[in-house]
Amino acid sequence: MNMHQGIFISFEGVDGAGKTTQVNRLRDELEAMGREVVVTREPGGTPLGGAIRKLLLHGVPGGSADIAPRAEALLFAADRAQHVAEVIRPALERGAVVITDRYLDSSLAYQAGGRELTADEVRSLSMWATNGLLPARTYLLDMDPALSHTRLDHDEDRMESAGDAFQRRTRQAFLDLAAGEPDRFRVIDASGTVENMWRAIRADIADLL
Amino acid sequence: MNMHQGIFISFEGVDGAGKTTQVNRLRDELEAMGREVVVTREPGGTPLGGAIRKLLLHGVPGGSADIAPRAEALLFAADRAQHVAEVIRPALERGAVVITDRYLDSSLAYQAGGRELTADEVRSLSMWATNGLLPARTYLLDMDPALSHTRLDHDEDRMESAGDAFQRRTRQAFLDLAAGEPDRFRVIDASGTVENMWRAIRADIADLL
Repeated sequence: MNMHQGIFISFEGVDGAGKTTQVNRLRDELEAMGREVVVTREPGGTPLGGAIRKLLLHGVPGGSADIAPRAEALLFAADRAQHVAEVIRPALERGAVVITDRYLDSSLAYQAGGRELTADEVRSLSMWATNGLLPARTYLLDMDPALSHTRLDHDEDRMESAGDAFQRRTRQAFLDLAAGEPDRFRVIDASGTVENMWRAIRADIADLL
Repeated sequence: MNMHQGIFISFEGVDGAGKTTQVNRLRDELEAMGREVVVTREPGGTPLGGAIRKLLLHGVPGGSADIAPRAEALLFAADRAQHVAEVIRPALERGAVVITDRYLDSSLAYQAGGRELTADEVRSLSMWATNGLLPARTYLLDMDPALSHTRLDHDEDRMESAGDAFQRRTRQAFLDLAAGEPDRFRVIDASGTVENMWRAIRADIADLL
């Protein structure tokens, strides 16, 4: 019997903001407290999601056309639906802490903030996909996209090559989301040191628990 | 300049009902009249859709869990969104006749009729995916699932192995859809000869044109 209640936490922000490091610190801290922690990510948190992620980030061999905006939004939602059904809900039900690197706010910021769809449409899709599951806490690791760009050490994929204007719009979309749900979000300054970011998260997680 | 108006036609019904034969006859007839005809299908009418179709029909290598019902519905909708954006709308805009082997009624019959989701949910998803594009005419090739089963000469895939009760429920769901939209649907008795089916479709298409 696990006497804890499941807690669902997401990390958001542009690539290169340092999410992975903070996710791992938080996992270590919570495990040291005796909690079961499940670390996962979107897209690609399940085998099905991994296949969807490949389509989304690298396109289709022989595919002549771009992925249509609605098709893209539906693929992200399919990945999320499977992720919630196969990984997140079962873990929460057995009392684990689930930490996901990206969740529905990434869809809102990248698809609705940056492309052709409205935020209401993308949010409705995600809420249907997940049967309404929202994180108890979302850490937005916020930084200037120009700075995050220099931190990335791997090849650009389809999203990363979409341009600086897109990155700036995405950052602003994340900040707007955070402002709209101050109870759920904590904005962490990701231009500072790893240690300062972790201090802010650790202080907050103590409150949350 | 193509002076014709685009016409969108779908064929529906269980596998083995003879859709492919009738689609090809209709294409030949319309081409003989001088029309551009685009024959396509769902799932898999685009390169992206082909990749999605593989996931839907054969699962994921290494995937330990079933595809969740919402993830499945979202994948079909993603295939449809790409199909409409990449193939169907451009063809209709240049005045072609588009004939698709399966469209949103298959989602309603197979997902809503046979699995956990409501028809309203699945219809809303499809209408969003397609930006509201419905066929001008839908031919439902209707037959007893027990009969269609003996006609199939290939290995069973995930859908076909879902059982006889599922097949009967799916047939009834198709018939209910047809009854609900009598202007769009024509129900063709697929237990008869190929020639009788074609006569019924040819007479109707003359009216439609």
